[in-house]
Amino acid sequence: MQITPDALISDLSAIRERKPLIHSITNFVVMNTTANALLALGASPVMAHAEDEVEDMTAIAGALVINIGTVDASWEPGMRRAAAHADALEIPSVLDPVGAGATPYRNRVVGRLLDTATPRVIRGNASEIRAVGTVCAAAAQAGAGQGGGTRGVDSSRGSHETAGDAQELSRKLGCVVCMSGEVDYIVEHDCAVLVSNGDPMMPRVTGLGCTASALCGAFLAVRKSPLKAAAHAMAVMGIAGEIAAERAEGPGTLQLHFLDALANLDGEDIAQRMRLEVRS
Amino acid sequence: MQITPDALISDLSAIRERKPLIHSITNFVVMNTTANALLALGASPVMAHAEDEVEDMTAIAGALVINIGTVDASWEPGMRRAAAHADALEIPSVLDPVGAGATPYRNRVVGRLLDTATPRVIRGNASEIRAVGTVCAAAAQAGAGQGGGTRGVDSSRGSHETAGDAQELSRKLGCVVCMSGEVDYIVEHDCAVLVSNGDPMMPRVTGLGCTASALCGAFLAVRKSPLKAAAHAMAVMGIAGEIAAERAEGPGTLQLHFLDALANLDGEDIAQRMRLEVRS
Amino acid sequence: MQITPDALISDLSAIRERKPLIHSITNFVVMNTTANALLALGASPVMAHAEDEVEDMTAIAGALVINIGTVDASWEPGMRRAAAHADALEIPSVLDPVGAGATPYRNRVVGRLLDTATPRVIRGNASEIRAVGTVCAAAAQAGAGQGGGTRGVDSSRGSHETAGDAQELSRKLGCVVCMSGEVDYIVEHDCAVLVSNGDPMMPRVTGLGCTASALCGAFLAVRKSPLKAAAHAMAVMGIAGEIAAERAEGPGTLQLHFLDALANLDGEDIAQRMRLEVRS
Repeated sequence: MQITPDALISDLSAIRERKPLIHSITNFVVMNTTANALLALGASPVMAHAEDEVEDMTAIAGALVINIGTVDASWEPGMRRAAAHADALEIPSVLDPVGAGATPYRNRVVGRLLDTATPRVIRGNASEIRAVGTVCAAAAQAGAGQGGGTRGVDSSRGSHETAGDAQELSRKLGCVVCMSGEVDYIVEHDCAVLVSNGDPMMPRVTGLGCTASALCGAFLAVRKSPLKAAAHAMAVMGIAGEIAAERAEGPGTLQLHFLDALANLDGEDIAQRMRLEVRS
Repeated sequence: MQITPDALISDLSAIRERKPLIHSITNFVVMNTTANALLALGASPVMAHAEDEVEDMTAIAGALVINIGTVDASWEPGMRRAAAHADALEIPSVLDPVGAGATPYRNRVVGRLLDTATPRVIRGNASEIRAVGTVCAAAAQAGAGQGGGTRGVDSSRGSHETAGDAQELSRKLGCVVCMSGEVDYIVEHDCAVLVSNGDPMMPRVTGLGCTASALCGAFLAVRKSPLKAAAHAMAVMGIAGEIAAERAEGPGTLQLHFLDALANLDGEDIAQRMRLEVRS
Repeated sequence: MQITPDALISDLSAIRERKPLIHSITNFVVMNTTANALLALGASPVMAHAEDEVEDMTAIAGALVINIGTVDASWEPGMRRAAAHADALEIPSVLDPVGAGATPYRNRVVGRLLDTATPRVIRGNASEIRAVGTVCAAAAQAGAGQGGGTRGVDSSRGSHETAGDAQELSRKLGCVVCMSGEVDYIVEHDCAVLVSNGDPMMPRVTGLGCTASALCGAFLAVRKSPLKAAAHAMAVMGIAGEIAAERAEGPGTLQLHFLDALANLDGEDIAQRMRLEVRS
């Protein structure tokens, strides 16, 4: 397999042309920034979580993105219903297990969502991916989830150290696992894509991980291979982040320049900056 | 009827002086940006949706703004209670039927809100206004809502094409209908105001339509005629958007310059830029 | 008692080094900006409100911040559970009684939260602090809360006028009361700290008061004395606000420069700008 700048440029054009509707059931912290990032990219965001509505909304969407950042008992049923409906209609979906491992409750929610349907892509940081792996292992043993040592929503281990966790989880669930960090690992069975774009200032802005998940949804709406879609999304995130960081004076201005960069991204930016390696 | 820059300038001064409290029951995506836009304009925003509180909050407000962007079963009763109370106290209210037509659920919510009370102003894009019209027609026939072909929260038809929908809905409900697009149509029975201010970059920022609805509320708090209040709000939106677009490099920076422009707007900006036509 | 720039600089370094987890149960309007402010300062924000999760989240946090800005019946139980758990585990907590006095409902919620546990710091504007005082007085008389004349979430009286309210409330509850305004009064029994930093443009940005409460939480996580922690937080708010205002053209750009200023704040800024007076 190969991933060229041209394939990414072509997907970006497809998003800007078709403006796929991305149905997001996400957290309160990032709703505004996620919607803005999808709009800046060229997609059409819609946020809707009411249990009575999610199936109808998913049915007209190009992709579904579920993010558990501020999940509670009143939102979970809508998430599960949307996930099941996307699965039934073969609409691609993304799961962002924000803060998995931080509390037993979060692990239980993740377990129930994965029992409902397998997403095409799971995207999280190293701690979250590891916690999801633990949840799955515990489920397999019919035991209780033990958490994976997440400290809030931050990653507590290096990405390199945990690349194996991503591979294991991908094999277990049969879906793409996208583990973001200094280097992003996007894994499908034995094939891995490493994306080295990005800037150290990005983790100082809240919710850029959630934005990455939303962008995975947008690329899934125009690209069949979830491995390529997720790799393209992560490359676009990193490249826009680099451009933004060159103009920003801190994390506050970074987030606005990031949206501008997403909207203005062109083929030259991508061709010159993309740092992506395929290992299979 | 005539609408002069002077009348708008006078309303803007009144808002800045009296700082009317605008009670907003709105969606999660835009709460922050709506509050900031109201503050930048000179009004006092308050966001409160608890069923046990909305009546007391509406009672001390200069206007009520209801926006169904992320409505669910737990928020709808508070919306209806606030709408009924505003109606009883003759406090002006605005309804923003975000995404009407996208799902049957949204249409039902809109139908129930309109059964509860008629707002002074309904503001939406062409698809949403058309969908609300369909809901009302279906109600009149005691039939089920059929939706109006909204694709998410975007407008799918040209504004010009659907000016008739706005007029019909205004006649049917006896309230002002404000249909925003490249040209905004603000309609009351047979009288229409067309506002041509604005910038093509504005739809790339999430929730500027919701901001427009909130600003309608602020102008309603100081101006008796809902037609003039809505026209003033749309002109201010468009003018601030133009000023912001001249300084922005993309949709990210646009939204900040937009707030700055709202806060700094003066009589000269308005007199020089206002493009508004009255047809009656 | 003395508060020197060096003590504040040392606390800021401690936050940047230890990155304390700040568990926030806050309102929908400010979740994003609060998370970004905590990240910019150097802390680790986590927003989680589910009743089944709050105890576990509080248990791993350096501080808990409760903000009632958009509270409703479904969020209150989680707030109380978290507050009780923080109290039991001696994890410092902050209460931001947003809009106290505006409605009887808000006063009842404040009353029930204060019945559950006493926070280390209560932070609000003059009207809110006065309303909390009224709630407590009414509770003492076994009477019903009468409200304190708050107009929405704005302060309706001068800060100077109500410094006595803060002192009275601090004595009554035995906690630090931080009343923000042009001059911030941070009071513990008979000792008061006055912080004069800040800029008049700051109240034009929504939620900077909520940010101040969140920052109180971050400083409480590294400093034992709640009086000093709150004073440090208010000084940092004001100094970052001043730096931001020098670069901003309005309230829109102010909020981004504010985050940049928080992230870039150094010892020299603090030593040169801090305007803080201790009265005991």
